Amino acid sequence: MNNELHQLEFLRQHAKQASEKAYVPYSQFPVGAALLMKSGEVISGCNVENVSYGLSNCAERTAVFSAVAQGYDARDISAVVVYTPGDKAYAPCGACRQVLAEFLATGTPIVSTSERQMRQWAIEDLLPDAFEFDVNAYRKPL
Amino acid sequence: MNNELHQLEFLRQHAKQASEKAYVPYSQFPVGAALLMKSGEVISGCNVENVSYGLSNCAERTAVFSAVAQGYDARDISAVVVYTPGDKAYAPCGACRQVLAEFLATGTPIVSTSERQMRQWAIEDLLPDAFEFDVNAYRKPL
Amino acid sequence: MNNELHQLEFLRQHAKQASEKAYVPYSQFPVGAALLMKSGEVISGCNVENVSYGLSNCAERTAVFSAVAQGYDARDISAVVVYTPGDKAYAPCGACRQVLAEFLATGTPIVSTSERQMRQWAIEDLLPDAFEFDVNAYRKPL
Amino acid sequence: MNNELHQLEFLRQHAKQASEKAYVPYSQFPVGAALLMKSGEVISGCNVENVSYGLSNCAERTAVFSAVAQGYDARDISAVVVYTPGDKAYAPCGACRQVLAEFLATGTPIVSTSERQMRQWAIEDLLPDAFEFDVNAYRKPL
Repeated sequence: MNNELHQLEFLRQHAKQASEKAYVPYSQFPVGAALLMKSGEVISGCNVENVSYGLSNCAERTAVFSAVAQGYDARDISAVVVYTPGDKAYAPCGACRQVLAEFLATGTPIVSTSERQMRQWAIEDLLPDAFEFDVNAYRKPL
Repeated sequence: MNNELHQLEFLRQHAKQASEKAYVPYSQFPVGAALLMKSGEVISGCNVENVSYGLSNCAERTAVFSAVAQGYDARDISAVVVYTPGDKAYAPCGACRQVLAEFLATGTPIVSTSERQMRQWAIEDLLPDAFEFDVNAYRKPL
Repeated sequence: MNNELHQLEFLRQHAKQASEKAYVPYSQFPVGAALLMKSGEVISGCNVENVSYGLSNCAERTAVFSAVAQGYDARDISAVVVYTPGDKAYAPCGACRQVLAEFLATGTPIVSTSERQMRQWAIEDLLPDAFEFDVNAYRKPL
Repeated sequence: MNNELHQLEFLRQHAKQASEKAYVPYSQFPVGAALLMKSGEVISGCNVENVSYGLSNCAERTAVFSAVAQGYDARDISAVVVYTPGDKAYAPCGACRQVLAEFLATGTPIVSTSERQMRQWAIEDLLPDAFEFDVNAYRKPL
């Protein structure tokens, strides 16, 4: 238990440091995320906005995309910790939930933290009845 | 009750017709959506894919964006019906849930249909603890 | 020529009216778009933003998605006119250029207008050497 | 000159290795990207697709988002090299062009490579008349 608390604070610090690197000239709302990989490595992400708002990317997705680019496979993530400054701990947006659902095993903890609050879910709490389809079900043969 | 069934089938037919207009050369997975507006009007959408997969748009979002462009306000939607061919009724993806959450009142029915199945939710079932933030909370004064 | 000017002003008015329907609580930057279809019909779009900035959609894409949902095929668009209030006429973002490239024939005029400025391009000016790939080139057989 | 060729091949190898990590169950089209930072560090990215196609992310954007999360600032990128297997060297999509435009200085080389082809641009070639707007121009005071 004590170890778990230490680990959570360790990941929260990573997420907080990542939030300081956020590129948020449009929202001025910095977010950081830290993924604990099964290997023990921590991979961080921050939000990166764009003048065309729809091309902005959230912290959680930056971290997942980075993990894949570093060679991690689906199901290699053992915890996700998000940090935002201020009082309120925010839940991931729907786009991030869908991207996390592509990679997270059921039950993997997703923890949101701030300076004052902590909230925790699993992906099946955040995206119940997740959209999934068999890519081959509708494909016509070549 | 009977009226509700008639209305659902009416909306399902709109969604089915919209699915026939889907532009899906990449997934070959056509989806249609129909929004019943409080005015009684029905606004339809289909998925529109792109060679750069990330620029693809789902049926539900096409319908919502069209409704806004036709002058509807947030909270003007009284039901959402989705259709996909085949046996299985699919739940909306996380991106669509977030876009629906921006406009739907709590409790608004979201119904997914196919040739054999029907499933129903409210937005708070599909996107519990939705991400929301006060746009002014982090903004620095001009 | 005179007819062309009349038609451009007619489309600009459609785009301007669409911009008044924009849902832009985050950027406060309303944009409207009008597509002239080969059938003579005009289809309009506006930008629709989201609290998760990355799920925002631009006016040009709203209009294209609506056109497809109304049954139009690729290559049915004969002109695109965009409107933003104020002095400056803005060029479409990269995401909209890619979506337009999926549907516009070479040479189709894309005109951006404001209260004081007008700029015109073809899609091949805005997205030179467009990304295109043969969806079947990399697919493994079922 | 010789040094430049060595460096390009070095970056191409990084991009190629990144492409081997691509998560592409839907398109089966792997892409890798390598950014040469002014510090000399190389940051790689690959495409990461999603069952909801619109949530897919390209290799170039994965690399840019990772660079920002690692603390790099706008304008810290001195070259972008993309790799795809096969004969043809592909140009970046419009979404990637817009994201690169947010960070790249004018003239920064963007090189696309394959097993047989090489193509080179600057961002102003790929996204002429880039969309840019002053975020404060339309904002109402708090």
